[in-house]
Amino acid sequence: MRQLFHTPEGVRDIYGSECEKKLHLQGKLQTVFHSFGYQDIETPTFEFFDVFSAQVGTTPSRALYKFFDREGNTLVLRPDFTPSIARAASQYFSHENFPVRLCYRGNTFVNNSSYQGRLKESTKMGAELLGDATADADAEIIALMVELLKTTGLTEFQISIGEVEFFKALVEETGMDEETVARLRQMISSKNHFGVEELLLEQKLSEEQMQALSQLPQLFGSQEVLEKARSLTSNEKALKALGRLEDIYQVLEFYGCQQYVSFDLGMLSKYQYYTGIIFQGYTYGTGEPLVKGGRYDSLLAHFGRPAPAIGFELVMDQVMSALERQQIPAPVTKGRTLILYKEDTRPLAIGLAREHREHQMDVQCMLMEEGRTLEDYKSYGRKNHFGGIVYPVNEDEIRVINLFTDEVQTARIQDLR
Amino acid sequence: MRQLFHTPEGVRDIYGSECEKKLHLQGKLQTVFHSFGYQDIETPTFEFFDVFSAQVGTTPSRALYKFFDREGNTLVLRPDFTPSIARAASQYFSHENFPVRLCYRGNTFVNNSSYQGRLKESTKMGAELLGDATADADAEIIALMVELLKTTGLTEFQISIGEVEFFKALVEETGMDEETVARLRQMISSKNHFGVEELLLEQKLSEEQMQALSQLPQLFGSQEVLEKARSLTSNEKALKALGRLEDIYQVLEFYGCQQYVSFDLGMLSKYQYYTGIIFQGYTYGTGEPLVKGGRYDSLLAHFGRPAPAIGFELVMDQVMSALERQQIPAPVTKGRTLILYKEDTRPLAIGLAREHREHQMDVQCMLMEEGRTLEDYKSYGRKNHFGGIVYPVNEDEIRVINLFTDEVQTARIQDLR
Repeated sequence: MRQLFHTPEGVRDIYGSECEKKLHLQGKLQTVFHSFGYQDIETPTFEFFDVFSAQVGTTPSRALYKFFDREGNTLVLRPDFTPSIARAASQYFSHENFPVRLCYRGNTFVNNSSYQGRLKESTKMGAELLGDATADADAEIIALMVELLKTTGLTEFQISIGEVEFFKALVEETGMDEETVARLRQMISSKNHFGVEELLLEQKLSEEQMQALSQLPQLFGSQEVLEKARSLTSNEKALKALGRLEDIYQVLEFYGCQQYVSFDLGMLSKYQYYTGIIFQGYTYGTGEPLVKGGRYDSLLAHFGRPAPAIGFELVMDQVMSALERQQIPAPVTKGRTLILYKEDTRPLAIGLAREHREHQMDVQCMLMEEGRTLEDYKSYGRKNHFGGIVYPVNEDEIRVINLFTDEVQTARIQDLR
Repeated sequence: MRQLFHTPEGVRDIYGSECEKKLHLQGKLQTVFHSFGYQDIETPTFEFFDVFSAQVGTTPSRALYKFFDREGNTLVLRPDFTPSIARAASQYFSHENFPVRLCYRGNTFVNNSSYQGRLKESTKMGAELLGDATADADAEIIALMVELLKTTGLTEFQISIGEVEFFKALVEETGMDEETVARLRQMISSKNHFGVEELLLEQKLSEEQMQALSQLPQLFGSQEVLEKARSLTSNEKALKALGRLEDIYQVLEFYGCQQYVSFDLGMLSKYQYYTGIIFQGYTYGTGEPLVKGGRYDSLLAHFGRPAPAIGFELVMDQVMSALERQQIPAPVTKGRTLILYKEDTRPLAIGLAREHREHQMDVQCMLMEEGRTLEDYKSYGRKNHFGGIVYPVNEDEIRVINLFTDEVQTARIQDLR
């Protein structure tokens, strides 16, 4: 019987004020995407398996929800929007020589193992800027994320930026084998300094290589990190990656959002489709990123239309729990009014409700049940965050109860019109 | 390779102005739900199989998308919101003695066979009013549907109302076996008068039973239908069902939406959980209903909390295609502005963009590419529905191009502030 009353592990119902806040915030965030010229797209909740296959470099196959259609094709609940949008854009915008700006909102699904209570379905909002390889595009995407996070009401957050080419260039030069690189990535990601150093000592590295790679886990912080990194390597590709970050930082100045930005050259992503900058946004008191993304200049070629691209996703559940934990008040919602009636005042009450609604007011209209008193309705109204109760007394008069002050007023119906 | 570039059959991408219109309309409809006092709820995209099992009486098992979680439980993509909300409400609102008003928005999934090009994923918005058995509740739900359909921009639509108890009472009285009843339902649903008559002649029926059942397929139209139906039967339960429809119609008068309502006593639903009134809303030029629903007084007991309930869903895809076919213009969207810049005007342009956004304007900011002329950007802007192009000439001046009139103006930057 448990399966009849409960949701599966890792997914949940959202209702009441939590749901109201979430949907209200999503509406506000959508206007921010639009204000930057991004246009809405919706892709299907499930796609053919190929769209999320290993070559694409998204979520590993074992963490995908897979099932079959009637024709025996394998379908997958999307774990990530980026491959879907790359597929869609390759189909619909391939004639477009100018950059394409798309934004989305929807849920993604990852079949995690159940430990840790991680969500298996989560709501994302995000943007993709396709066909633009410039540092200006990178900066715009970061500025958009900053604007979105400011709009949530959060004031203290940081977007940390890395560059996958910096690390790639350094390890390429050393000629380490794949397995060693994988171990190194893992240790750098977990900021395991000793492990990194030990592993590097086992390799045949030049003094410079040793220096640069062993310092990597510490190369995070404000823009001085870029200067420091410059002093550690003469590798051209690595220097080019640093140059890109410097360019982006300069454009971000004009957006006025440098204070929200820092660098982390040891940042690595589990999505393998990233080719340039990658980033994650954090606030205090939460371990999981609020936003994450990066540049993926090779992914669109996989879907038949080579083009540079950059994008990110904002994780609504993380944003909501950060707001909750930091006790940031949600936007004030409209005060609702409860209109009560009896059989004989029904036409008056419903007429009043219609007038309220025409004036963009939220009203709930209820036939008073036998055996219930006005006090019952007052406590119901308070519990459910109504601002007031209105009920018609006769054709001329209505009574208005303010549920905050308990004050009662009598008004003439025609005066309200 | 087909599976890499395309969506599975029956699901699709929505983008460009179609997507913009859909999301804009959804936002407007959501305010209508709120204006009637309904509160948002989100349930998971998939649930345990039991929530949609045959006993619940929703979509048949073969038309469900089924898959497994890591523990081997069978999960189902929701084909319908009502069982999910009944489950959730039974869990969270069981302490609530007053009616609960919930509204939702999301996608449902039905694994149809592929013929007819029917959608397998479709967007629904809907409401459920739980814990209220009155005709007032029925009327409120119908008035809410009328208000939603008016808000879409449709002007000619009809909500057709039936009562499942009317048909049930009539056949119960005859003692027909289940199989015969199923055949009869099928013929009545397809308005097959001759088939109905032939089938009835094979049964042993009284004159009155014969009359009432054979007339059923014709019992649709305005409220005179109710009087006619009254004259055809003396069955108490059937008369009670008619009385209910009369009560509802009277309340609908006060909502001012009788003109949008008609009756159809031959209407039957494929969902077996309905116990009272059922309804479907249509407009011309579309065969599929825009809205549908009904009363389901037994479903909540299945989830452990007996309570009367009524609800409906609005099928966004049907609404969108009706608007398209009837050429009803979508709400005017904000005119977007394209801001262009070169390396040396970057700070000015980004500053301008920020000011525009602070004033709730939608602007897209673009670095002009080498080899592209202003004419290229003008045609790009027109094609993508921008209202104008703005670009800084120097620190004091900007040029403004109206893309509708091609008029060019020069403005001083400080005058814009």
